[in-house]
Amino acid sequence: MKYVENAWYVAGWASEFADQPVKITVLEQELVLYRKTDGQVCALRDLCPHKLLPLSMGKVDGDTIQCGYHGTVFNAQGHCIRVPGQEIIPKRQCVDVFPVHEKNNIVWVWMGDADQADTSQVFDLPQFHDKTWRAHHGDALHIESNYLNVAENLVDPAHVSFVHPTTLGNAQSEDVPVHVDTAGETITAWRWIRDAPPVGFFKELGGFDGHVDRWHYYYLHLPSTAVIDFGSADAALEIAEEDREQGMRIFALHFLTPVNATHTIDRWMHIRNRAIDDNSIGDRMNALFRIAFDEDKVILEAIQEQETRLAAAEKPTQKPLRLAIDKGPNEYRKRIERLQQ
Amino acid sequence: MKYVENAWYVAGWASEFADQPVKITVLEQELVLYRKTDGQVCALRDLCPHKLLPLSMGKVDGDTIQCGYHGTVFNAQGHCIRVPGQEIIPKRQCVDVFPVHEKNNIVWVWMGDADQADTSQVFDLPQFHDKTWRAHHGDALHIESNYLNVAENLVDPAHVSFVHPTTLGNAQSEDVPVHVDTAGETITAWRWIRDAPPVGFFKELGGFDGHVDRWHYYYLHLPSTAVIDFGSADAALEIAEEDREQGMRIFALHFLTPVNATHTIDRWMHIRNRAIDDNSIGDRMNALFRIAFDEDKVILEAIQEQETRLAAAEKPTQKPLRLAIDKGPNEYRKRIERLQQ
Amino acid sequence: MKYVENAWYVAGWASEFADQPVKITVLEQELVLYRKTDGQVCALRDLCPHKLLPLSMGKVDGDTIQCGYHGTVFNAQGHCIRVPGQEIIPKRQCVDVFPVHEKNNIVWVWMGDADQADTSQVFDLPQFHDKTWRAHHGDALHIESNYLNVAENLVDPAHVSFVHPTTLGNAQSEDVPVHVDTAGETITAWRWIRDAPPVGFFKELGGFDGHVDRWHYYYLHLPSTAVIDFGSADAALEIAEEDREQGMRIFALHFLTPVNATHTIDRWMHIRNRAIDDNSIGDRMNALFRIAFDEDKVILEAIQEQETRLAAAEKPTQKPLRLAIDKGPNEYRKRIERLQQ
Repeated sequence: MKYVENAWYVAGWASEFADQPVKITVLEQELVLYRKTDGQVCALRDLCPHKLLPLSMGKVDGDTIQCGYHGTVFNAQGHCIRVPGQEIIPKRQCVDVFPVHEKNNIVWVWMGDADQADTSQVFDLPQFHDKTWRAHHGDALHIESNYLNVAENLVDPAHVSFVHPTTLGNAQSEDVPVHVDTAGETITAWRWIRDAPPVGFFKELGGFDGHVDRWHYYYLHLPSTAVIDFGSADAALEIAEEDREQGMRIFALHFLTPVNATHTIDRWMHIRNRAIDDNSIGDRMNALFRIAFDEDKVILEAIQEQETRLAAAEKPTQKPLRLAIDKGPNEYRKRIERLQQ
Repeated sequence: MKYVENAWYVAGWASEFADQPVKITVLEQELVLYRKTDGQVCALRDLCPHKLLPLSMGKVDGDTIQCGYHGTVFNAQGHCIRVPGQEIIPKRQCVDVFPVHEKNNIVWVWMGDADQADTSQVFDLPQFHDKTWRAHHGDALHIESNYLNVAENLVDPAHVSFVHPTTLGNAQSEDVPVHVDTAGETITAWRWIRDAPPVGFFKELGGFDGHVDRWHYYYLHLPSTAVIDFGSADAALEIAEEDREQGMRIFALHFLTPVNATHTIDRWMHIRNRAIDDNSIGDRMNALFRIAFDEDKVILEAIQEQETRLAAAEKPTQKPLRLAIDKGPNEYRKRIERLQQ
Repeated sequence: MKYVENAWYVAGWASEFADQPVKITVLEQELVLYRKTDGQVCALRDLCPHKLLPLSMGKVDGDTIQCGYHGTVFNAQGHCIRVPGQEIIPKRQCVDVFPVHEKNNIVWVWMGDADQADTSQVFDLPQFHDKTWRAHHGDALHIESNYLNVAENLVDPAHVSFVHPTTLGNAQSEDVPVHVDTAGETITAWRWIRDAPPVGFFKELGGFDGHVDRWHYYYLHLPSTAVIDFGSADAALEIAEEDREQGMRIFALHFLTPVNATHTIDRWMHIRNRAIDDNSIGDRMNALFRIAFDEDKVILEAIQEQETRLAAAEKPTQKPLRLAIDKGPNEYRKRIERLQQ
């Protein structure tokens, strides 16, 4: 299928890479990554052009990688520098390389034209660099669904009351209208649920007893990074929308890596402004996120199963019906169409 | 593949349906069924048109069903009556419904034009309503084979000696000719094995010691319901063909639900004229049926595997060779061809 | 896919066949084999033409085989001699037969025109008939890779140092040039590693302590039988290339049966000139072979996976790059092209 190729995608947390080959698949491309002796991660196509063995089945030696079948050696620029048993190295015995950039303990890889790989475009958030906030890594959640389904779910506040009724949502938000702003580079959807009982997450981790004002802001960065700013504050404070800092505020980050047409990796983590030195709170938050994101996974995989089944069975295929509550997702799909080559 | 759409198919035993959604697949169509507050079962297409989530993953509430993704609510007529977060409900937000009829503790669903759904055509048998007979439900046997293979096996007495040599048949019947009558609406095949040792089934459950007269009558109702009238009587009685009532007589019923081109559900049960108050005899009969029908399953799945393999591998595909002993099956295939749209 | 049809392929070791039906698949053809009352193995297409049940699910009775569905009986010439329940046997109720030849405790089957089946072409080796040598059967290794990948690996000494660094090869041979002779009917590749430490195999089983001269000769018989003559001799002896008999010399034989485009059975065995009465040495050799051949299996299956993936994903498909070290494999592929029909 088509993808947005000129973009940075998450290859993994920084901790996943060392001096052993690591195989990943991004946009249906198989890559092998490893750290060179200078600590930098490099990425090559994971395929020896000789007999098509994945290089990740070979050995990293210093800055080079050696194929496990006939011992051919490639450097980090993808050039073959040795073919055991023959003197001449054919020009075609070389592999593609992919730009890599590491920031905030996350390793990103560029899947398009190397000339256009601008490291200043790699996702960042001021709170990563602010000592009053704490970043806490989560998991790599494998979802058997197209990344577009996963991404649009992350700019869709309307599902929260029904998919996460005991964790992130509750009945009070069912009919609260959603605001959507499509003016900027990110697509933003949000809603406030004022003066209502706290949801499970904040009851347990924020210590809220009485009514709270609760917000959900969804920022979707094209092609597939989502920031969800959500939190709660004592309803008695009647805080203004721009004063969310006064409550318990959490950024849930989702970095989606499209593996292929029906498989997405959702690497998620959070940054919080409370209990920043309390690891056990962070772990407990992640435990609740795991429950909530598994609720999404069940839905997103069921949808993919139907899409796959209908595409195979019918002509013309039944397409999802776009409703008014889908303003964010609809805008997202339109923009992706334009970015695909 | 093509199916006979204007027909009633078994959706399940009545006991399978209550106020929770039940997903079934019939003729490659996925349906969700549930009992309404009046006790009637209704059937809707199992697909929310919004994001394509199966409705069976949602919740039944009274006579309605709510999608588990965005809380959209449908009534039993397939009309959407609520979209949380928006006022206007688009006309296209509706789902197909299918006629349902319950009779003799069996739930049937009509897969064709609703206008032609005539409940008087739903299968019945006088013995269901006769106090001197006892109906006893069996299982839902899943067979990985096309329903045509399964159905023609049920109008084919010639296989019994070879597939069921210790349960339903024995060597005495190998060369006994088969009669076939194709004049009526049902296709009928039968044979009598006179004055021979009883087969395993009647030896154990009929208490027959000496020689018996044994009969097998196969009635195939289009498209996929089979009635097998089989029994034994003391050979000394020399009963006439129409006096089968004098022996131990059993109707084995098979209701075939075509799931897809290579999967059929065979819901089977029996009605008997002996030991009608003895549940343990009924259970023991079912235990023997299970053994016998598993013998069929092995054969029917092996055949399907070859059909699938040959269809994928060869042009032109090798087709089964029709023999004289296949008169019943041949007639069945011809009639199905005509009924398919 | 295309295969070399006019050729003998190994159906199994002689010990695998008795008076029970055995199903095998060769060149995507399913066959049933059994021994007749005279001890000869016969091979029929494993498909009853009536309902397409594999005959291997039926019963062998003397020289005949009976279908397990309707009891149809076929003789070893593929003619139907009985259809229970009817007098006339249609001509088309017959199955294909395949020439079989047993030699050196191996059963071979001919997959092409029966007229051209010349049993004098069946593979043989003088050492099979020489009392100073000992033949020792190994296993049937199932490899999920095309037989061409498996076969070319058997005329490719260049991989040994990298795939088998602790068993059959070591670092001393990495850059030793390979000789290839394509003049005869078999393709031959070989190299000598003179005056080097022994590899694991000969250290353990040959009792070599000091330096040895080691040789690897690969003889590939079209379409898919490989003979690997390998051994070691005390380096002090400085033996001539033609005097390999003076060292410890082993023939590893590989009989490849192409099952389908991605599955090959590699039946392997060895013949040795040392410890010919010591079964435990033979078993220990086989244990080491198992380790080494499993190393090949991992590589060959990974390659197949990439070939399959690339063929499905890309137009035009990326093909393996042929290097100078591939002289033997390249010649093999060319000859196979010519032999395929």
